[in-house]
Amino acid sequence: MSVITIERKVLEKNDEVARANRELFNTQKIFAINLVSSPGSGKTSILERTLAHLKNKITVAVIEGDVQTDFDAQRISALGVQAIQIVTKGGCHLEATLVKEALSHVDLSNVQLLVIENVGNLVCPANYDLGEAMKVVVASTTEGDDKPLKYPAMFRNASVLIINKVDLLPYVNCKIDLLKKNALSINPSLHIFETSCTTNAGIAEWCGWLEKNIVKP
Amino acid sequence: MSVITIERKVLEKNDEVARANRELFNTQKIFAINLVSSPGSGKTSILERTLAHLKNKITVAVIEGDVQTDFDAQRISALGVQAIQIVTKGGCHLEATLVKEALSHVDLSNVQLLVIENVGNLVCPANYDLGEAMKVVVASTTEGDDKPLKYPAMFRNASVLIINKVDLLPYVNCKIDLLKKNALSINPSLHIFETSCTTNAGIAEWCGWLEKNIVKP
Repeated sequence: MSVITIERKVLEKNDEVARANRELFNTQKIFAINLVSSPGSGKTSILERTLAHLKNKITVAVIEGDVQTDFDAQRISALGVQAIQIVTKGGCHLEATLVKEALSHVDLSNVQLLVIENVGNLVCPANYDLGEAMKVVVASTTEGDDKPLKYPAMFRNASVLIINKVDLLPYVNCKIDLLKKNALSINPSLHIFETSCTTNAGIAEWCGWLEKNIVKP
Repeated sequence: MSVITIERKVLEKNDEVARANRELFNTQKIFAINLVSSPGSGKTSILERTLAHLKNKITVAVIEGDVQTDFDAQRISALGVQAIQIVTKGGCHLEATLVKEALSHVDLSNVQLLVIENVGNLVCPANYDLGEAMKVVVASTTEGDDKPLKYPAMFRNASVLIINKVDLLPYVNCKIDLLKKNALSINPSLHIFETSCTTNAGIAEWCGWLEKNIVKP
């Protein structure tokens, strides 16, 4: 019972810092998304394609969360985009305090879009508000069509579902209509996009939708 | 600081129950494996192929761990194998106590192999001993070749790595030699198998190795 109480206190403390982060984003007119998925679903690849598409139109900053390594921040920096890496050293999710600390290293002036790429984990990050405007969950076709039912909290708490790796549909045991049906049964208000980072399919549609949410200067 | 102390106590309590589970397995001559991976790597499919291969040779029981749904236990039961589902209702990993409780519903007489399929999560289950003889980590080629470096604890704590979905190698951005090199850089003593549940490649090799670890009556 004491553990439950402490977990609740941890979440309360997290939500307090998340509220402060959200206020900062609102004041500075920054649209912040929290990108979540299983390991290897293609979050960083989608982010690379998104940055290539929005370049010269939108000023973006990225906070990368990983258990270990700064590979992802290196990939984003290579595109000339401001990127900060949080290494959790075993931690299974980002918390609002870690994001707050990372923000102190980001030049937020002119930033219109902040992407926070969470640790690859379809369970724990669902419960941690970072102050984002919305969670965007990526599910790849290779993971199968049953994941929304097996990991419902993440799909319930997300506003957008990106179904990635649609180019692999001919080779995998995944019915995309069933995947969408399962996701919508958990969360009927999900906006769904279908993408491939190999063929670039769906990237323009996703970026177009994203742009509409960004406050123009 | 208090949270760290409590986490340590939780792990100590877990390890105590894990030791009791391990003693039970040793006394009853049951070889127990803890099957871990990201969501959608193919743990249940590998288990189905393994059961089909070992059927009529080895008596197997299965404990399935999922955040939600009993789909996996249904799939295993359909093969005529004793299967118990643990639904963690949001919990991100199995703990030794949950396994102990599940064991009270399993008829262990004659069981030679117990497979505990953990929650799909490449982070949290790494730290929880369930009393198993070894952890077997599944990584699919679709997740990319960098996962051992990004999620090192799981690969460090596993004895076996099954690289699954090798049939998809021509279509994905994953160099299998680099994946193996990365895994062995984290844990040089890993036994590595390469499988496909679509073509059945590598299943005989994996099952052959598994059989050698099982105590014959």
